[in-house]
Amino acid sequence: MRFVKAHGTENDFVLLSDPSGRLTVDAALVHALCDRRAGIGGDGVIRVVRTAAVTEVAQLAGQAEWFMDYRNADGTIGEMCGNGVRVLVHYLRAAGYVTGPVTAVATRDGVKRVEMRDDGTYSVDLGLPDLRGPSKASIGDLVFDGVELSTGNPHLACVLGGDPGGGGVNPDVPLEALDLTRPPEVDRSIFPTGTNAEFVTVLGPRHIRMRVHERGVGETRSCGTGACAATLAVASAQGDAVGTWDVDVPGGRLQVTLDGRTAHLAGPAVLVAEGELRPEWFAR
Amino acid sequence: MRFVKAHGTENDFVLLSDPSGRLTVDAALVHALCDRRAGIGGDGVIRVVRTAAVTEVAQLAGQAEWFMDYRNADGTIGEMCGNGVRVLVHYLRAAGYVTGPVTAVATRDGVKRVEMRDDGTYSVDLGLPDLRGPSKASIGDLVFDGVELSTGNPHLACVLGGDPGGGGVNPDVPLEALDLTRPPEVDRSIFPTGTNAEFVTVLGPRHIRMRVHERGVGETRSCGTGACAATLAVASAQGDAVGTWDVDVPGGRLQVTLDGRTAHLAGPAVLVAEGELRPEWFAR
Repeated sequence: MRFVKAHGTENDFVLLSDPSGRLTVDAALVHALCDRRAGIGGDGVIRVVRTAAVTEVAQLAGQAEWFMDYRNADGTIGEMCGNGVRVLVHYLRAAGYVTGPVTAVATRDGVKRVEMRDDGTYSVDLGLPDLRGPSKASIGDLVFDGVELSTGNPHLACVLGGDPGGGGVNPDVPLEALDLTRPPEVDRSIFPTGTNAEFVTVLGPRHIRMRVHERGVGETRSCGTGACAATLAVASAQGDAVGTWDVDVPGGRLQVTLDGRTAHLAGPAVLVAEGELRPEWFAR
Repeated sequence: MRFVKAHGTENDFVLLSDPSGRLTVDAALVHALCDRRAGIGGDGVIRVVRTAAVTEVAQLAGQAEWFMDYRNADGTIGEMCGNGVRVLVHYLRAAGYVTGPVTAVATRDGVKRVEMRDDGTYSVDLGLPDLRGPSKASIGDLVFDGVELSTGNPHLACVLGGDPGGGGVNPDVPLEALDLTRPPEVDRSIFPTGTNAEFVTVLGPRHIRMRVHERGVGETRSCGTGACAATLAVASAQGDAVGTWDVDVPGGRLQVTLDGRTAHLAGPAVLVAEGELRPEWFAR
């Protein structure tokens, strides 16, 4: 079985090339591949397969030749991944499967349009997060006012030293000092199964830095939908509905462009290595 | 640049095949290769090179054809690695570079003799740890009596619910409950630069389980010299100088055989994958 290891702002993936849909990728295989010590290691697995070869999305084949069959490291199905879809298109281009600046990709969250930019980074339309209202997060004794947003998945964005929700002023602690080894505590009546939580520092005009705790995963080096949610939270509080923001994450820099109608996420994609799993690994 | 990813009881390595010594493997490359998200990921890098091609060990070429040029993930030089040397020999056999049941390997700690066993695991003579005397380790409010040992590197082995050093009785907490996210506190007059610390539970006759905090690394899934140190500490306390012990570590099972003269470490070696780094990764 051949694989490619790749990442976007250090959100990393094992790609399995399967154009005609012959591979069986079950939860146990995903879990084993993503094991960082006994496997290849990754936040998830992307099976690269033609849309027409996958029954559940075959109706999208007229709109998008390729399907992002994404699974999280624990083996669960993932609807979409803003960093993963850039990595997928970068791989498709490198492998010669697609050409031209724009690639439509089928996902379980519909068809996404990915554009290669002049600097070699990729931009994808993730849709505008749905800004729902104020909420709170606690980390130990620190309580933060924040705003609830939905990008399909739940988010809670909290600005350090400020409050995008319009309430009080949040503790002005250094972003690096927050303990994100455990999930922040949130209002379970609003987030019954938890939430992705973004903690944000405003660095300058349209420039923020964030850390994110992803629901069911832990702190990650980057989260694409989280970057869009955090940007919209800060932009809304500033009454700045249209513009391009730099979003620094632990794994690099993303850009989020708000145009009043949607949010575009842009950032790098890097193919680290390609290779083949050894037969003895399968016999483990 | 081609690589192999491999592990022994989940102590994992990036192997670079360099028979004639042409590669330049500097600290920056090691650090980048071992990065688990932006690189391949590993606890260290093993450059596989003929002994005669490396000036610093060329005098050993008559005793061992191959040299284990080992570097830790942070880029520093490693003298030896009990899990790594099994992995190296397993790779040499798979690549057809060596045959026969016994392979001598040159390391910065001298020539090591590695034997393949009938079950496909490998045994290596690591020498007998030097048992020095009692010492203590603290984890938060818990204080453990233990014994200081040296395997070239410093070790401190503490038995939960017992005391191999002959003093009091240690707290009988579950091994899994220990917080090893930070280095245990030790006597800096004995261990001026810290120590590897093993915490051990006796499961039955010649059967122990251990967790290890490696100096400068953190908790790891396995440590070969640590397994030997922990075994000798318990065996000495029991007055049991000769015998074979099962040592369960988070990443699997090792065996340590004491014969009164030396300690042999045995365990598995697995080649996970082989591949090639992409040019764009080097241009990162």
